[in-house]
Amino acid sequence: MPRTPLWTEIETALTEDIAEGRYRPGDRLPSEAALAGRFGVNRHTVRRALASLAEAGMVHPRRGAGVYVQQAPTEYPIGRRVRFHRNLEAAGRLPTREIAALETRTADAREARALELNDGDPVLVCEGRSLADGQPIALFRSVFPAARLPGLAEALRELSSVTAALARAGVPDYTRRSTQISAHPATATQAAQLRLTQEAPLLRTLAVNVDPRGRPVEYGTTWFAGDRVTLTLSASEESGEP
Amino acid sequence: MPRTPLWTEIETALTEDIAEGRYRPGDRLPSEAALAGRFGVNRHTVRRALASLAEAGMVHPRRGAGVYVQQAPTEYPIGRRVRFHRNLEAAGRLPTREIAALETRTADAREARALELNDGDPVLVCEGRSLADGQPIALFRSVFPAARLPGLAEALRELSSVTAALARAGVPDYTRRSTQISAHPATATQAAQLRLTQEAPLLRTLAVNVDPRGRPVEYGTTWFAGDRVTLTLSASEESGEP
Repeated sequence: MPRTPLWTEIETALTEDIAEGRYRPGDRLPSEAALAGRFGVNRHTVRRALASLAEAGMVHPRRGAGVYVQQAPTEYPIGRRVRFHRNLEAAGRLPTREIAALETRTADAREARALELNDGDPVLVCEGRSLADGQPIALFRSVFPAARLPGLAEALRELSSVTAALARAGVPDYTRRSTQISAHPATATQAAQLRLTQEAPLLRTLAVNVDPRGRPVEYGTTWFAGDRVTLTLSASEESGEP
Repeated sequence: MPRTPLWTEIETALTEDIAEGRYRPGDRLPSEAALAGRFGVNRHTVRRALASLAEAGMVHPRRGAGVYVQQAPTEYPIGRRVRFHRNLEAAGRLPTREIAALETRTADAREARALELNDGDPVLVCEGRSLADGQPIALFRSVFPAARLPGLAEALRELSSVTAALARAGVPDYTRRSTQISAHPATATQAAQLRLTQEAPLLRTLAVNVDPRGRPVEYGTTWFAGDRVTLTLSASEESGEP
Protein backbone atom coordinates (compact mmCIF):
# COMPACT_ATOMS: atom_id res chain seq x y z
CA MET A 1 0.00 0.00 0.00
CA PRO A 2 1.47 3.38 -0.97
CA ARG A 3 2.12 5.88 1.78
CA THR A 4 -0.45 8.63 2.21
CA PRO A 5 0.50 11.36 -0.27
CA LEU A 6 2.12 14.43 1.26
CA TRP A 7 -0.71 16.76 0.31
CA THR A 8 -3.27 14.72 2.25
CA GLU A 9 -1.16 15.19 5.40
CA ILE A 10 -1.25 18.94 4.84
CA GLU A 11 -4.97 18.76 4.16
CA THR A 12 -5.45 16.86 7.44
CA ALA A 13 -3.32 19.36 9.38
CA LEU A 14 -5.29 22.32 8.00
CA THR A 15 -8.59 20.52 8.65
CA GLU A 16 -7.53 20.11 12.29
CA ASP A 17 -6.48 23.77 12.48
CA ILE A 18 -9.96 24.75 11.31
CA ALA A 19 -11.74 22.23 13.55
CA GLU A 20 -9.82 23.47 16.57
CA GLY A 21 -10.54 27.12 15.77
CA ARG A 22 -6.98 28.25 14.94
CA TYR A 23 -8.49 29.48 11.67
CA ARG A 24 -12.09 30.54 12.13
CA PRO A 25 -14.93 30.85 9.60
CA GLY A 26 -14.30 33.91 7.46
CA ASP A 27 -10.54 33.98 8.19
CA ARG A 28 -8.06 34.15 5.37
CA LEU A 29 -5.55 31.29 5.40
CA PRO A 30 -1.83 32.13 5.17
CA SER A 31 -0.51 32.49 1.62
CA GLU A 32 0.62 29.45 -0.36
CA ALA A 33 4.22 30.55 0.17
CA ALA A 34 3.73 30.80 3.94
CA LEU A 35 2.05 27.37 4.11
CA ALA A 36 4.80 25.87 1.94
CA GLY A 37 7.33 27.22 4.43
CA ARG A 38 5.43 25.93 7.45
CA PHE A 39 5.09 22.40 6.10
CA GLY A 40 8.45 22.30 4.33
CA VAL A 41 6.93 21.40 0.95
CA ASN A 42 6.67 23.11 -2.40
CA ARG A 43 3.76 25.33 -3.40
CA HIS A 44 2.38 22.75 -5.80
CA THR A 45 1.79 20.40 -2.85
CA VAL A 46 0.12 23.18 -0.84
CA ARG A 47 -2.08 23.99 -3.83
CA ARG A 48 -3.20 20.33 -4.12
CA ALA A 49 -4.16 20.31 -0.42
CA LEU A 50 -6.05 23.62 -0.73
CA ALA A 51 -7.89 22.36 -3.83
CA SER A 52 -9.00 19.28 -1.93
CA LEU A 53 -10.20 21.41 1.01
CA ALA A 54 -12.10 23.61 -1.45
CA GLU A 55 -13.73 20.55 -3.06
CA ALA A 56 -14.77 19.42 0.41
CA GLY A 57 -16.30 22.84 1.04
CA MET A 58 -13.99 23.64 3.98
CA VAL A 59 -12.42 26.70 2.33
CA HIS A 60 -13.14 28.81 -0.73
CA PRO A 61 -10.72 30.75 -2.88
CA ARG A 62 -11.59 34.34 -3.76
CA ARG A 63 -9.99 35.39 -7.00
CA GLY A 64 -6.86 37.38 -6.36
CA ALA A 65 -7.61 37.64 -2.64
CA GLY A 66 -6.51 34.36 -1.07
CA VAL A 67 -8.23 31.36 0.43
CA TYR A 68 -10.89 31.80 3.12
CA VAL A 69 -12.30 29.41 5.71
CA GLN A 70 -15.89 28.56 4.89
CA GLN A 71 -18.63 29.55 7.31
CA ALA A 72 -20.09 26.36 8.80
CA PRO A 73 -23.24 25.78 6.75
CA THR A 74 -26.59 25.38 8.44
CA GLU A 75 -27.78 21.78 8.19
CA TYR A 76 -31.32 21.73 6.84
CA PRO A 77 -33.15 18.37 6.87
CA ILE A 78 -35.41 17.72 3.86
CA GLY A 79 -37.33 14.57 4.79
CA ARG A 80 -41.10 14.14 4.87
CA ARG A 81 -41.63 16.88 7.46
CA VAL A 82 -39.83 20.06 6.50
CA ARG A 83 -40.40 22.97 8.87
CA PHE A 84 -38.28 26.09 8.45
CA HIS A 85 -38.46 27.30 12.05
CA ARG A 86 -37.91 23.86 13.57
CA ASN A 87 -35.03 23.09 11.19
CA LEU A 88 -33.20 26.29 12.02
CA GLU A 89 -33.75 25.94 15.76
CA ALA A 90 -32.45 22.37 15.63
CA ALA A 91 -29.29 23.76 14.00
CA GLY A 92 -28.89 26.23 16.86
CA ARG A 93 -29.82 29.21 14.68
CA LEU A 94 -32.44 31.87 15.28
CA PRO A 95 -34.93 31.71 12.39
CA THR A 96 -36.68 34.76 10.99
CA ARG A 97 -38.63 35.39 7.80
CA GLU A 98 -39.27 38.63 5.95
CA ILE A 99 -42.26 38.78 3.64
CA ALA A 100 -41.52 41.07 0.68
CA ALA A 101 -44.72 40.52 -1.30
CA LEU A 102 -48.07 38.84 -0.73
CA GLU A 103 -50.55 38.88 -3.58
CA THR A 104 -53.37 36.93 -5.15
CA ARG A 105 -53.13 36.31 -8.89
CA THR A 106 -53.98 33.59 -11.39
CA ALA A 107 -51.90 30.39 -11.46
CA ASP A 108 -49.47 29.87 -14.31
CA ALA A 109 -49.28 26.47 -15.99
CA ARG A 110 -46.53 25.08 -13.72
CA GLU A 111 -48.22 26.24 -10.52
CA ALA A 112 -51.59 24.88 -11.62
CA ARG A 113 -50.07 21.47 -12.37
CA ALA A 114 -48.19 21.30 -9.04
CA LEU A 115 -51.24 22.34 -7.02
CA GLU A 116 -53.76 20.29 -9.07
CA LEU A 117 -55.64 23.44 -10.08
CA ASN A 118 -57.06 24.56 -13.37
CA ASP A 119 -55.11 27.15 -15.37
CA GLY A 120 -56.29 30.55 -14.27
CA ASP A 121 -57.47 29.50 -10.79
CA PRO A 122 -56.43 32.01 -8.12
CA VAL A 123 -53.27 31.45 -6.11
CA LEU A 124 -51.87 33.31 -3.13
CA VAL A 125 -48.19 34.05 -3.67
CA CYS A 126 -45.92 34.86 -0.74
CA GLU A 127 -42.34 35.92 -1.48
CA GLY A 128 -39.54 36.87 0.84
CA ARG A 129 -36.32 36.08 2.57
CA SER A 130 -35.31 33.62 5.30
CA LEU A 131 -32.61 34.51 7.79
CA ALA A 132 -30.55 32.58 10.33
CA ASP A 133 -29.15 34.69 13.17
CA GLY A 134 -29.88 37.75 11.03
CA GLN A 135 -27.89 36.47 8.03
CA PRO A 136 -29.92 35.90 4.85
CA ILE A 137 -29.77 32.22 3.94
CA ALA A 138 -32.57 31.81 1.39
CA LEU A 139 -35.19 33.45 -0.79
CA PHE A 140 -38.56 31.80 -1.02
CA ARG A 141 -41.70 31.90 -3.11
CA SER A 142 -44.67 29.96 -1.73
CA VAL A 143 -47.74 29.50 -3.92
CA PHE A 144 -50.97 28.42 -2.21
CA PRO A 145 -54.33 27.38 -3.69
CA ALA A 146 -56.24 30.53 -2.66
CA ALA A 147 -59.77 29.12 -2.93
CA ARG A 148 -58.98 26.13 -0.69
CA LEU A 149 -57.40 28.22 2.07
CA PRO A 150 -59.66 31.12 3.06
CA GLY A 151 -58.03 33.59 5.45
CA LEU A 152 -54.50 32.42 4.69
CA ALA A 153 -53.26 35.83 3.48
CA GLU A 154 -54.23 37.46 6.79
CA ALA A 155 -52.75 34.56 8.77
CA LEU A 156 -49.44 34.82 6.88
CA ARG A 157 -49.33 38.57 7.58
CA GLU A 158 -49.93 38.05 11.31
CA LEU A 159 -47.99 34.88 12.04
CA SER A 160 -44.33 34.38 11.30
CA SER A 161 -44.68 30.68 10.56
CA VAL A 162 -46.23 29.07 7.48
CA THR A 163 -47.15 26.05 9.61
CA ALA A 164 -49.13 28.23 12.04
CA ALA A 165 -50.78 30.16 9.20
CA LEU A 166 -51.83 26.95 7.42
CA ALA A 167 -53.21 25.59 10.70
CA ARG A 168 -55.38 28.67 11.07
CA ALA A 169 -56.57 28.26 7.46
CA GLY A 170 -57.76 24.73 8.22
CA VAL A 171 -54.68 22.61 7.45
CA PRO A 172 -53.67 21.03 10.77
CA ASP A 173 -50.72 19.13 9.31
CA TYR A 174 -48.86 18.72 6.02
CA THR A 175 -46.06 16.60 4.60
CA ARG A 176 -43.70 16.78 1.64
CA ARG A 177 -44.91 14.90 -1.42
CA SER A 178 -41.81 15.66 -3.47
CA THR A 179 -38.69 17.78 -3.60
CA GLN A 180 -36.55 18.61 -6.64
CA ILE A 181 -33.07 19.98 -6.02
CA SER A 182 -30.87 21.79 -8.51
CA ALA A 183 -28.04 24.35 -8.56
CA HIS A 184 -28.07 27.67 -10.41
CA PRO A 185 -26.00 30.84 -10.50
CA ALA A 186 -27.53 33.77 -8.58
CA THR A 187 -29.09 36.51 -10.68
CA ALA A 188 -28.06 40.08 -9.83
CA THR A 189 -31.24 40.60 -7.76
CA GLN A 190 -30.89 37.31 -5.89
CA ALA A 191 -27.23 38.02 -5.18
CA ALA A 192 -28.09 41.45 -3.73
CA GLN A 193 -30.87 40.03 -1.54
CA LEU A 194 -28.65 37.23 -0.23
CA ARG A 195 -25.50 39.39 0.00
CA LEU A 196 -23.62 37.11 -2.38
CA THR A 197 -21.49 37.83 -5.40
CA GLN A 198 -23.35 37.64 -8.70
CA GLU A 199 -23.44 34.11 -10.16
CA ALA A 200 -22.60 32.58 -6.77
CA PRO A 201 -24.15 29.08 -6.68
CA LEU A 202 -27.66 28.76 -5.27
CA LEU A 203 -29.24 25.50 -4.18
CA ARG A 204 -32.82 25.56 -5.44
CA THR A 205 -35.57 23.30 -4.12
CA LEU A 206 -39.01 22.94 -5.66
CA ALA A 207 -41.38 21.23 -3.25
CA VAL A 208 -45.02 20.23 -3.02
CA ASN A 209 -46.60 19.93 0.41
CA VAL A 210 -49.86 18.03 0.83
CA ASP A 211 -52.46 17.87 3.57
CA PRO A 212 -53.29 14.59 5.37
CA ARG A 213 -55.74 13.73 2.57
CA GLY A 214 -53.03 14.17 -0.03
CA ARG A 215 -54.28 17.45 -1.50
CA PRO A 216 -51.55 19.97 -2.39
CA VAL A 217 -51.53 22.97 -0.05
CA GLU A 218 -48.24 24.63 -1.01
CA TYR A 219 -45.94 24.76 -4.02
CA GLY A 220 -42.72 26.24 -2.75
CA THR A 221 -39.51 27.34 -4.38
CA THR A 222 -36.53 28.12 -2.17
CA TRP A 223 -33.18 29.45 -3.30
CA PHE A 224 -30.59 28.71 -0.61
CA ALA A 225 -27.20 30.45 -0.54
CA GLY A 226 -25.03 27.51 -1.59
CA ASP A 227 -22.27 28.24 0.91
CA ARG A 228 -24.58 28.76 3.90
CA VAL A 229 -26.87 25.74 3.82
CA THR A 230 -26.39 22.00 3.44
CA LEU A 231 -29.55 20.00 2.80
CA THR A 232 -29.49 16.74 4.69
CA LEU A 233 -31.44 13.56 4.21
CA SER A 234 -31.18 10.62 6.54
CA ALA A 235 -32.81 7.20 6.50
CA SER A 236 -34.55 7.80 9.86
CA GLU A 237 -36.02 11.13 8.71
CA GLU A 238 -37.12 9.55 5.46
CA SER A 239 -39.21 6.98 7.23
CA GLY A 240 -41.26 9.81 8.71
CA GLU A 241 -40.34 8.94 12.30
CA PRO A 242 -39.63 11.91 14.55
CA MET B 1 -58.03 40.10 -7.50
CA PRO B 2 -55.51 41.97 -9.71
CA ARG B 3 -55.13 40.87 -13.29
CA THR B 4 -52.11 38.67 -14.04
CA PRO B 5 -49.18 41.01 -14.66
CA LEU B 6 -48.16 41.40 -18.29
CA TRP B 7 -44.75 39.81 -17.79
CA THR B 8 -46.26 36.56 -16.50
CA GLU B 9 -48.26 36.29 -19.73
CA ILE B 10 -45.03 36.62 -21.69
CA GLU B 11 -43.37 34.09 -19.39
CA THR B 12 -46.26 31.67 -20.00
CA ALA B 13 -46.10 32.20 -23.78
CA LEU B 14 -42.34 31.53 -23.83
CA THR B 15 -42.77 28.50 -21.55
CA GLU B 16 -45.27 27.10 -24.05
CA ASP B 17 -42.94 27.86 -26.95
CA ILE B 18 -40.23 25.85 -25.19
CA ALA B 19 -42.59 23.03 -24.14
CA GLU B 20 -43.86 22.70 -27.71
CA GLY B 21 -40.33 22.68 -29.13
CA ARG B 22 -40.45 26.00 -31.01
CA TYR B 23 -37.31 26.84 -29.06
CA ARG B 24 -35.29 23.73 -28.27
CA PRO B 25 -32.69 23.05 -25.55
CA GLY B 26 -29.50 24.91 -26.46
CA ASP B 27 -31.30 27.41 -28.74
CA ARG B 28 -30.77 31.11 -28.26
CA LEU B 29 -33.99 33.04 -27.70
CA PRO B 30 -34.68 36.11 -29.86
CA SER B 31 -33.20 39.35 -28.51
CA GLU B 32 -35.06 41.41 -25.93
CA ALA B 33 -35.86 43.94 -28.65
CA ALA B 34 -37.30 41.23 -30.91
CA LEU B 35 -39.40 39.76 -28.08
CA ALA B 36 -40.61 43.25 -27.09
CA GLY B 37 -41.74 43.73 -30.70
CA ARG B 38 -43.46 40.35 -30.88
CA PHE B 39 -45.44 40.87 -27.66
CA GLY B 40 -45.99 44.62 -28.09
CA VAL B 41 -44.44 45.48 -24.71
CA ASN B 42 -41.35 47.35 -23.58
CA ARG B 43 -38.00 45.71 -22.98
CA HIS B 44 -38.31 46.06 -19.21
CA THR B 45 -41.35 43.76 -19.29
CA VAL B 46 -39.49 41.24 -21.47
CA ARG B 47 -36.55 41.36 -19.08
CA ARG B 48 -38.81 40.62 -16.08
CA ALA B 49 -40.26 37.58 -17.89
CA LEU B 50 -36.78 36.33 -18.87
CA ALA B 51 -35.53 36.77 -15.28
CA SER B 52 -38.43 34.69 -14.01
CA LEU B 53 -37.74 31.96 -16.60
CA ALA B 54 -34.07 32.01 -15.53
CA GLU B 55 -35.05 31.67 -11.85
CA ALA B 56 -37.21 28.71 -12.82
CA GLY B 57 -34.25 27.16 -14.60
CA MET B 58 -35.95 27.17 -18.03
CA VAL B 59 -33.38 29.46 -19.66
CA HIS B 60 -29.97 30.79 -18.75
CA PRO B 61 -28.34 34.05 -19.80
CA ARG B 62 -24.76 33.96 -21.07
CA ARG B 63 -23.01 37.23 -20.50
CA GLY B 64 -23.00 39.32 -23.64
CA ALA B 65 -24.30 36.42 -25.73
CA GLY B 66 -28.05 36.30 -25.17
CA VAL B 67 -30.46 33.98 -23.39
CA TYR B 68 -30.39 30.25 -24.08
CA VAL B 69 -32.96 27.51 -23.53
CA GLN B 70 -31.79 25.17 -20.78
CA GLN B 71 -31.07 21.54 -21.59
CA ALA B 72 -33.68 19.40 -19.84
CA PRO B 73 -31.89 18.16 -16.72
CA THR B 74 -31.66 14.46 -15.93
CA GLU B 75 -33.88 13.61 -12.98
CA TYR B 76 -31.87 11.66 -10.41
CA PRO B 77 -33.79 10.13 -7.47
CA ILE B 78 -31.98 10.22 -4.13
CA GLY B 79 -34.12 8.07 -1.84
CA ARG B 80 -32.99 5.05 0.14
CA ARG B 81 -31.87 3.10 -2.90
CA VAL B 82 -29.63 5.16 -5.13
CA ARG B 83 -28.24 3.31 -8.14
CA PHE B 84 -26.44 5.31 -10.82
CA HIS B 85 -27.12 2.96 -13.72
CA ARG B 86 -30.76 2.38 -12.81
CA ASN B 87 -31.37 6.09 -12.21
CA LEU B 88 -29.99 7.07 -15.59
CA GLU B 89 -31.82 4.32 -17.44
CA ALA B 90 -35.08 5.34 -15.77
CA ALA B 91 -34.48 8.86 -17.12
CA GLY B 92 -34.06 7.43 -20.62
CA ARG B 93 -30.31 8.12 -20.68
CA LEU B 94 -27.46 5.76 -21.43
CA PRO B 95 -25.22 5.59 -18.35
CA THR B 96 -21.46 5.16 -18.54
CA ARG B 97 -18.68 5.63 -15.99
CA GLU B 98 -15.01 6.33 -16.54
CA ILE B 99 -12.59 5.43 -13.76
CA ALA B 100 -9.69 7.90 -13.68
CA ALA B 101 -7.92 6.61 -10.57
CA LEU B 102 -8.17 3.60 -8.29
CA GLU B 103 -5.80 3.42 -5.35
CA THR B 104 -5.48 2.14 -1.81
CA ARG B 105 -4.27 4.64 0.78
CA THR B 106 -4.89 5.47 4.44
CA ALA B 107 -8.18 7.07 5.46
CA ASP B 108 -8.22 10.74 6.39
CA ALA B 109 -10.17 11.87 9.47
CA ARG B 110 -13.43 12.56 7.60
CA GLU B 111 -13.35 9.29 5.69
CA ALA B 112 -12.56 7.29 8.83
CA ARG B 113 -15.50 8.87 10.67
CA ALA B 114 -17.94 8.28 7.81
CA LEU B 115 -16.87 4.65 7.36
CA GLU B 116 -16.50 3.91 11.10
CA LEU B 117 -12.82 3.12 10.69
CA ASN B 118 -9.80 4.09 12.72
CA ASP B 119 -7.60 6.90 11.43
CA GLY B 120 -4.99 5.37 9.21
CA ASP B 121 -7.00 2.27 8.26
CA PRO B 122 -6.69 1.48 4.54
CA VAL B 123 -9.35 2.70 2.12
CA LEU B 124 -9.86 1.99 -1.55
CA VAL B 125 -10.50 5.23 -3.44
CA CYS B 126 -12.14 5.21 -6.86
CA GLU B 127 -12.39 8.50 -8.76
CA GLY B 128 -13.86 9.26 -12.12
CA ARG B 129 -16.58 10.71 -14.26
CA SER B 130 -20.19 9.74 -14.92
CA LEU B 131 -21.77 10.33 -18.31
CA ALA B 132 -25.29 10.32 -19.69
CA ASP B 133 -25.57 9.71 -23.43
CA GLY B 134 -21.86 10.53 -23.64
CA GLN B 135 -22.23 13.92 -21.92
CA PRO B 136 -20.37 14.29 -18.61
CA ILE B 137 -22.88 14.89 -15.85
CA ALA B 138 -20.87 14.28 -12.67
CA LEU B 139 -17.50 13.62 -11.08
CA PHE B 140 -17.34 11.08 -8.29
CA ARG B 141 -15.02 9.92 -5.55
CA SER B 142 -16.02 6.69 -3.79
CA VAL B 143 -14.12 5.63 -0.69
CA PHE B 144 -14.49 2.02 0.45
CA PRO B 145 -13.27 0.28 3.63
CA ALA B 146 -10.54 -1.80 1.96
CA ALA B 147 -10.10 -4.43 4.69
CA ARG B 148 -13.82 -5.26 4.75
CA LEU B 149 -14.13 -5.70 0.99
CA PRO B 150 -11.43 -8.00 -0.36
CA GLY B 151 -11.25 -8.16 -4.15
CA LEU B 152 -13.22 -4.95 -4.63
CA ALA B 153 -10.47 -3.15 -6.58
CA GLU B 154 -10.36 -5.93 -9.18
CA ALA B 155 -14.16 -6.07 -9.33
CA LEU B 156 -14.38 -2.29 -9.90
CA ARG B 157 -11.83 -2.56 -12.70
CA GLU B 158 -13.74 -5.35 -14.42
CA LEU B 159 -17.36 -4.36 -13.86
CA SER B 160 -18.87 -1.05 -14.85
CA SER B 161 -21.28 -0.94 -11.92
CA VAL B 162 -20.46 -0.27 -8.26
CA THR B 163 -23.47 -2.37 -7.27
CA ALA B 164 -22.13 -5.38 -9.20
CA ALA B 165 -18.61 -4.88 -7.82
CA LEU B 166 -19.87 -4.68 -4.23
CA ALA B 167 -21.95 -7.83 -4.77
CA ARG B 168 -18.84 -9.70 -5.89
CA ALA B 169 -16.98 -8.40 -2.81
CA GLY B 170 -19.63 -9.87 -0.52
CA VAL B 171 -22.16 -7.02 -0.20
CA PRO B 172 -25.37 -8.32 -1.79
CA ASP B 173 -27.33 -5.14 -1.09
CA TYR B 174 -26.85 -1.65 0.31
CA THR B 175 -28.95 1.37 1.18
CA ARG B 176 -28.35 5.08 1.80
CA ARG B 177 -27.90 5.98 5.41
CA SER B 178 -27.55 9.70 4.76
CA THR B 179 -27.07 12.28 2.04
CA GLN B 180 -25.83 15.86 2.39
CA ILE B 181 -26.44 18.23 -0.51
CA SER B 182 -24.70 21.54 -1.11
CA ALA B 183 -23.79 23.85 -4.01
CA HIS B 184 -20.30 25.04 -4.90
CA PRO B 185 -18.58 26.79 -7.80
CA ALA B 186 -16.60 24.47 -10.08
CA THR B 187 -12.83 24.61 -9.73
CA ALA B 188 -10.84 24.96 -12.96
CA THR B 189 -10.16 21.21 -13.04
CA GLN B 190 -13.76 20.24 -12.33
CA ALA B 191 -15.00 22.69 -14.97
CA ALA B 192 -12.67 21.19 -17.58
CA GLN B 193 -13.70 17.62 -16.75
CA LEU B 194 -17.41 18.47 -16.89
CA ARG B 195 -17.08 20.85 -19.87
CA LEU B 196 -18.49 23.74 -17.88
CA THR B 197 -17.34 27.32 -17.45
CA GLN B 198 -15.18 27.90 -14.38
CA GLU B 199 -17.21 28.66 -11.25
CA ALA B 200 -20.37 27.18 -12.81
CA PRO B 201 -22.53 25.83 -9.97
CA LEU B 202 -22.06 22.20 -8.98
CA LEU B 203 -24.50 20.22 -6.88
CA ARG B 204 -22.43 18.18 -4.44
CA THR B 205 -23.72 15.16 -2.54
CA LEU B 206 -21.92 13.41 0.29
CA ALA B 207 -23.46 10.02 0.98
CA VAL B 208 -22.90 7.02 3.19
CA ASN B 209 -24.14 3.63 1.99
CA VAL B 210 -24.54 0.79 4.46
CA ASP B 211 -24.91 -2.98 4.09
CA PRO B 212 -28.02 -4.81 5.37
CA ARG B 213 -26.39 -5.02 8.84
CA GLY B 214 -25.90 -1.26 8.93
CA ARG B 215 -22.12 -1.25 8.39
CA PRO B 216 -20.80 1.50 6.08
CA VAL B 217 -19.57 0.12 2.75
CA GLU B 218 -19.12 3.34 0.75
CA TYR B 219 -18.51 7.02 1.46
CA GLY B 220 -19.24 8.77 -1.79
CA THR B 221 -18.87 12.33 -2.99
CA THR B 222 -20.49 13.31 -6.27
CA TRP B 223 -20.25 16.68 -8.00
CA PHE B 224 -23.13 17.01 -10.46
CA ALA B 225 -23.16 19.66 -13.19
CA GLY B 226 -25.84 21.96 -11.75
CA ASP B 227 -27.55 22.58 -15.07
CA ARG B 228 -27.64 18.93 -16.17
CA VAL B 229 -29.05 17.12 -13.16
CA THR B 230 -32.00 17.65 -10.82
CA LEU B 231 -32.00 15.54 -7.67
CA THR B 232 -35.49 14.33 -6.85
CA LEU B 233 -36.96 13.04 -3.66
CA SER B 234 -40.49 11.74 -3.43
CA ALA B 235 -42.52 10.41 -0.53
CA SER B 236 -42.95 6.97 -2.16
CA GLU B 237 -39.19 6.60 -2.79
CA GLU B 238 -38.44 7.70 0.75
CA SER B 239 -40.48 4.87 2.21
CA GLY B 240 -38.16 2.44 0.47
CA GLU B 241 -40.92 0.94 -1.65
CA PRO B 242 -39.97 0.16 -5.24
